[in-house]
Amino acid sequence: MKKVLLATTALIATASMAAAEVRISGYGRFGLDYNDAHSNDLADANYDGISETTITSRLRLQFDMSTETDGGVVIGARYRAQAESRDNNPGGATFNGARFYATYGGFTVGVGNIIGAVENMPGLYLETRSAGLGIDGAGFVSLVTNVNNEYFNWDAYSSAGAGANGLEVLYSAGGFTGHLSYSTDNDILPTAAVTDSAGDIITPATAGSLGGDRFAAMLAYTFGDWTAAIAGQSSDNAWEDKVAVSIAGDLGQFGVRLAYADNDGISKWGLYGNMDIGAASNILVFVTDEDAVDAADVAAGRADNRDTATVDGTEGTSYGIHYSYDLGGGASIEAGWRESSNDNTTVQAGVYFSF
Amino acid sequence: MKKVLLATTALIATASMAAAEVRISGYGRFGLDYNDAHSNDLADANYDGISETTITSRLRLQFDMSTETDGGVVIGARYRAQAESRDNNPGGATFNGARFYATYGGFTVGVGNIIGAVENMPGLYLETRSAGLGIDGAGFVSLVTNVNNEYFNWDAYSSAGAGANGLEVLYSAGGFTGHLSYSTDNDILPTAAVTDSAGDIITPATAGSLGGDRFAAMLAYTFGDWTAAIAGQSSDNAWEDKVAVSIAGDLGQFGVRLAYADNDGISKWGLYGNMDIGAASNILVFVTDEDAVDAADVAAGRADNRDTATVDGTEGTSYGIHYSYDLGGGASIEAGWRESSNDNTTVQAGVYFSF
Amino acid sequence: MKKVLLATTALIATASMAAAEVRISGYGRFGLDYNDAHSNDLADANYDGISETTITSRLRLQFDMSTETDGGVVIGARYRAQAESRDNNPGGATFNGARFYATYGGFTVGVGNIIGAVENMPGLYLETRSAGLGIDGAGFVSLVTNVNNEYFNWDAYSSAGAGANGLEVLYSAGGFTGHLSYSTDNDILPTAAVTDSAGDIITPATAGSLGGDRFAAMLAYTFGDWTAAIAGQSSDNAWEDKVAVSIAGDLGQFGVRLAYADNDGISKWGLYGNMDIGAASNILVFVTDEDAVDAADVAAGRADNRDTATVDGTEGTSYGIHYSYDLGGGASIEAGWRESSNDNTTVQAGVYFSF
Repeated sequence: MKKVLLATTALIATASMAAAEVRISGYGRFGLDYNDAHSNDLADANYDGISETTITSRLRLQFDMSTETDGGVVIGARYRAQAESRDNNPGGATFNGARFYATYGGFTVGVGNIIGAVENMPGLYLETRSAGLGIDGAGFVSLVTNVNNEYFNWDAYSSAGAGANGLEVLYSAGGFTGHLSYSTDNDILPTAAVTDSAGDIITPATAGSLGGDRFAAMLAYTFGDWTAAIAGQSSDNAWEDKVAVSIAGDLGQFGVRLAYADNDGISKWGLYGNMDIGAASNILVFVTDEDAVDAADVAAGRADNRDTATVDGTEGTSYGIHYSYDLGGGASIEAGWRESSNDNTTVQAGVYFSF
Repeated sequence: MKKVLLATTALIATASMAAAEVRISGYGRFGLDYNDAHSNDLADANYDGISETTITSRLRLQFDMSTETDGGVVIGARYRAQAESRDNNPGGATFNGARFYATYGGFTVGVGNIIGAVENMPGLYLETRSAGLGIDGAGFVSLVTNVNNEYFNWDAYSSAGAGANGLEVLYSAGGFTGHLSYSTDNDILPTAAVTDSAGDIITPATAGSLGGDRFAAMLAYTFGDWTAAIAGQSSDNAWEDKVAVSIAGDLGQFGVRLAYADNDGISKWGLYGNMDIGAASNILVFVTDEDAVDAADVAAGRADNRDTATVDGTEGTSYGIHYSYDLGGGASIEAGWRESSNDNTTVQAGVYFSF
Repeated sequence: MKKVLLATTALIATASMAAAEVRISGYGRFGLDYNDAHSNDLADANYDGISETTITSRLRLQFDMSTETDGGVVIGARYRAQAESRDNNPGGATFNGARFYATYGGFTVGVGNIIGAVENMPGLYLETRSAGLGIDGAGFVSLVTNVNNEYFNWDAYSSAGAGANGLEVLYSAGGFTGHLSYSTDNDILPTAAVTDSAGDIITPATAGSLGGDRFAAMLAYTFGDWTAAIAGQSSDNAWEDKVAVSIAGDLGQFGVRLAYADNDGISKWGLYGNMDIGAASNILVFVTDEDAVDAADVAAGRADNRDTATVDGTEGTSYGIHYSYDLGGGASIEAGWRESSNDNTTVQAGVYFSF
């Protein structure tokens, strides 16, 4: 299994203090995205004014600040300035929320835009530069924790937003890693209706809601070429409780992985394999299968992933193939095609480069 | 009095011109903030959906650009990209407005996001890393120029906003520093009412207002271990005229300071002391006393700082204590507790690190 | 003709990979802008609450990331964080959209916030640090492609926005440069009317519109001291088709230039000259003449540039003069005065410095 994610960090030595430093690194990616969910043909049923083929791109500049105390504790922080274009809708770069940490021995405490215990589970994401298919991940349908319009409903480091603003503790020793994370949201306060001068309601009153807590835990163990992991989240928010397990083998030229998650009652399986071809190429394939939501949950207000005559639910099988070619210098060509279980086809190809 | 604000600037030498450079520096801070003004208990009178205890954090990256002309004039500029979390409301980093300057000999001209003459007065802020209590300053109630819901109503370098967009001149020679600053606002133009199709008013007309000027001046003189300073602001905006004086002594292990301001009729006194303990610790205490607003001013529309049976005005005494422990490498533990004159209790503790 | 745009790029060498790098560069500028279109005197007909004389300033920090593949292809990207103040309305820095590129031999492919073929034509902009008059360009009335409230209606690298999100190919060999560029917009979808609780319309329905394509091409050839160029744009959007030509001579102490454009029926001529004076000074003058819009176009909905008794159209003659004094170290004094064809006078003076 090829390691294409090279470390090319630029290090700025500080003038007056050996311990403190700012590291600058990042990557750029750009290419074409074909997505049959879009159409700029007025005659199409799925017309949305966006071409099926658009430019997908990202430029990420990452700042890592750190220092070391006299007692050997490393204290640091990270944020990113990232520009994106998707669906022909480009934007200037914005910073995400900062993650702060203190590390001593195998222990790390994280604060702010935390990584999150479920997010940090080995064997969750694809073994590609985007961690998904193609150039931009193509929706990350390959994750067993993404089901039924409940995608990314766990605490995870946010590259474009403020993140969970939580707390986490990590511990590593030998092949073992443990991870606990916690976050809470402020309550959303009710608001009064806004009326015009005649007393007619312009903006209705809102009810407000109580902010929710998320607890998560992860355990992983590496033995030889294999890594097994389990993670779970308990949440106050609806349909966010989940448990995921994975086992992955890195067998030199080959990589294999099996993953499963119970997403508050919706099971999803994933099987993944990749193979180096020659000196510079790697091919990856995956297939996942998502079970139907329980009818009682739908009656209780949960989204419905079931296929019907008129709706392509996310129930069922997704699959895809990804190809990578290493150009040297931290650059590579990346291409991928996938069919999602709700009948969406995406094909992407382009270039990655790290700096 | 301990100097914990170490200079750890990262300097990027330029390739083709010795005179021009970009310096990168900054700091991170994170910790917990207990503030009894908040509550996420629906039964509390001051329920606002925010926990009493939240994460407070900031990550500041500062860019200093400069060059030197053949005639020895240094021309430069500064801005910051700063991410903050307060009251469990995190955000991605944003840049503030730029301050430009030209320096020759003891003279400096500043343009844009100016420092401001009152802001630059020695003996105004606390001798801590936040320049206030605890991790994030805890509202900066210790400043004698902050009274009666008229906080920070003088021209000051803005770390998160665009700033005053003004002009300033500074001169230093020997122990003497002089500072003049000026800014003006654009007028706020009146707007017409917005009506719906039935002619009912949705958004009322606004009257507009004339933009105001602010002039400020500061003089400071250091003789031996002591520094005396006076500053004042004359403003077109209501209730912003003020005069402040301070005298501070840096007596090796001890620091003492006395400050006073007349804030357009509201007097405020402050007394401050700090002491090094052992090799790495420093303790600081302060007490301030704010007089009541004049009843005639209240009748003229000024905010009312007077304590009543139902309202905790800012009139009266505030006090606090701050503890700092130097960890080495530019990092320290900072903790503080303060009671403000309007019965607000804040306790904060966490970590600072410079880079 | 003086070359004041010195390259002072700061280069951060990467730790582990010789090919990858991040370069940091930029410039600052600040000064005063007199513009008689503004007034903060309520008695003036053109009162808009903004003083005639305001601070104009910009601080630009540019990040250039690149790497080189084993096959010798350079892959890279650029974006900028830029803070501006105009008309006494300052702001914090924001990033623009990223431009990605791959270069091999004389060929370059660009993606995203492209330069654009018309924008890249030699002999389009003034030979000054702002590429226009004074400190901030003073509206760039000197460009023959800017007419009739249709300013900057071609694909061009955006320093403050997301840009065209297009594709371009450039080729250079010897004195020859060729450039093709293309971009497209998403359709703007129609929206339904928003009504209040009484059914009255608050926000009317909108019709939507089809997104437009822009194709552009440019050819330039340098022979000895002279450069000739031609560029054109074909656009789906109204009044954006245009052809421009230029010829410019860089004759040591003197520079001369002639430019012409047909802007979808509106012709504009420009004549430009500049001269070095002594070791550090340069003076530039220009005059342009814009023809009237066709009456049939106005009837078809096009803006009207014709002078009338009550309206100062952009038809007619604009002229200006610019002075530059090199201070050394990448800094210079820049000053300019111009009269635009619609009777607007602007005078600016201030300082530039590169880093």
